Amino acid sequence: MLIVGELINTSRKPIKEAVENRDAAYIREIARRQAEAGAHYIDVNCGTLVRNEPEVMAWLVELVKEAVDLPVCIDSPNPRALEVGLELAADRGQPMVNSITAESERFNTVLPLVLKYKARVVALLMDDSGMPDTAEQRIAIVRKLVGDLTRSGVPEDDIYIDPLVKPVSTSDSAGVEVLETLRFIRKEYSAVHTICGLSNISYGLPNRPVLNQVFLIQTMAAGMDAYILDPLDRTLMGFYYASQALLGKDPYCSEYLKAHRSGLYRKD
Amino acid sequence: MLIVGELINTSRKPIKEAVENRDAAYIREIARRQAEAGAHYIDVNCGTLVRNEPEVMAWLVELVKEAVDLPVCIDSPNPRALEVGLELAADRGQPMVNSITAESERFNTVLPLVLKYKARVVALLMDDSGMPDTAEQRIAIVRKLVGDLTRSGVPEDDIYIDPLVKPVSTSDSAGVEVLETLRFIRKEYSAVHTICGLSNISYGLPNRPVLNQVFLIQTMAAGMDAYILDPLDRTLMGFYYASQALLGKDPYCSEYLKAHRSGLYRKD
Repeated sequence: MLIVGELINTSRKPIKEAVENRDAAYIREIARRQAEAGAHYIDVNCGTLVRNEPEVMAWLVELVKEAVDLPVCIDSPNPRALEVGLELAADRGQPMVNSITAESERFNTVLPLVLKYKARVVALLMDDSGMPDTAEQRIAIVRKLVGDLTRSGVPEDDIYIDPLVKPVSTSDSAGVEVLETLRFIRKEYSAVHTICGLSNISYGLPNRPVLNQVFLIQTMAAGMDAYILDPLDRTLMGFYYASQALLGKDPYCSEYLKAHRSGLYRKD
Repeated sequence: MLIVGELINTSRKPIKEAVENRDAAYIREIARRQAEAGAHYIDVNCGTLVRNEPEVMAWLVELVKEAVDLPVCIDSPNPRALEVGLELAADRGQPMVNSITAESERFNTVLPLVLKYKARVVALLMDDSGMPDTAEQRIAIVRKLVGDLTRSGVPEDDIYIDPLVKPVSTSDSAGVEVLETLRFIRKEYSAVHTICGLSNISYGLPNRPVLNQVFLIQTMAAGMDAYILDPLDRTLMGFYYASQALLGKDPYCSEYLKAHRSGLYRKD
């Protein structure tokens, strides 16, 4: 299981302000706290800053590297920002690119970066016909993306399929189509990984944290093995360790018991 | 989905005391509150009272019938107590028997009661060789029990398989063996139901409510469609409604939104 800490994202107000004020100490602290809470990668996303995204990306990646020993996930719609981030992240373990898609232009632009930096890559299930609704549509894109990526030299083990989670408020089957896609990938491509963010599922509904927790547990049971999430969310991380234990992936429940002893389940 | 309210059980101290003091008002209130909270059956279990179980069973079932319109689940290891309870419950919708097993003596004693009262029946996965560990052992008992019950005239739709949940603290695979059994039953016996209590899974570990919540969500996603649980547990019921919505079993999330408006997710 792989956890990508999502907090360094300029769509979040405290990060936006820290970037505006060039508050390096705050960025470093957020990187450090995510590492301490169990993140395996630190995501860096400043895609809201269209004016100077590559420059801010460089500043943020340098700060993350100063603060923690973890590898970095470079997250941007902008290929220039991706390249700047990857260049800096390349000497800090295997970087991750978020994301490639099956859209021809995006695929052709991002693939050379993935190859150049031998990066892990989030492969988002979108193609030139748009965003899929059903599991069937998603599975067709999985076949195309995994085929194209592996033929280009990307190992299956470096591919993290993001099934493109849509809100259950707009379609009753939004969740189950994802679960079915996950079960297909587990069966057909045992070396390929799967990843998602959780919060899209609950968009437009009340009690979003509860829905996100349920979707974490459901997707883990269906074989999801990576998440982009807030590792400082104690309730969510509590459910993560409990799920691993009940799925038989935590010998003697030792990680679960360690989390318990560290106070993760304490109400305070 | 079917919820059996578990609270009227003399292994719980307040119920034991209410029975000792013949506190009819308390028993009626517990029945009523479970009905209001969404239970479809009221379980009655006084199996701890070996001295006068049939007599107490009769008293409790009468009180439940006075308090609510729901059918009753008669829950006992004692065939005499089962018969007394079923006789009284028979005019209050379809009763449920908890439980039959594949143990020859138990099967032969309980089957006539199931047939006489046309009851739904919890079929616990145990046979004369004992309690199963693996999914494979459970599946063998499923085949035998469903075969024997249907050949005897019990409709598949009246059978509720209890996969026999064991603590994950004693075996890392205790949870996944159950999940695999559920997926098998869903695929092979689409009309047969599955049921369980949740708390065995967490025996011997800290933060049991968290583990029970996770197991509820995992088993629902694997196809479990009935639970013996405490419907007054707001957190658990909140996860139940959220799970149904994300599994596409709650059109327009309307039950989830109703639960929200009723204050189920309020922290107080």
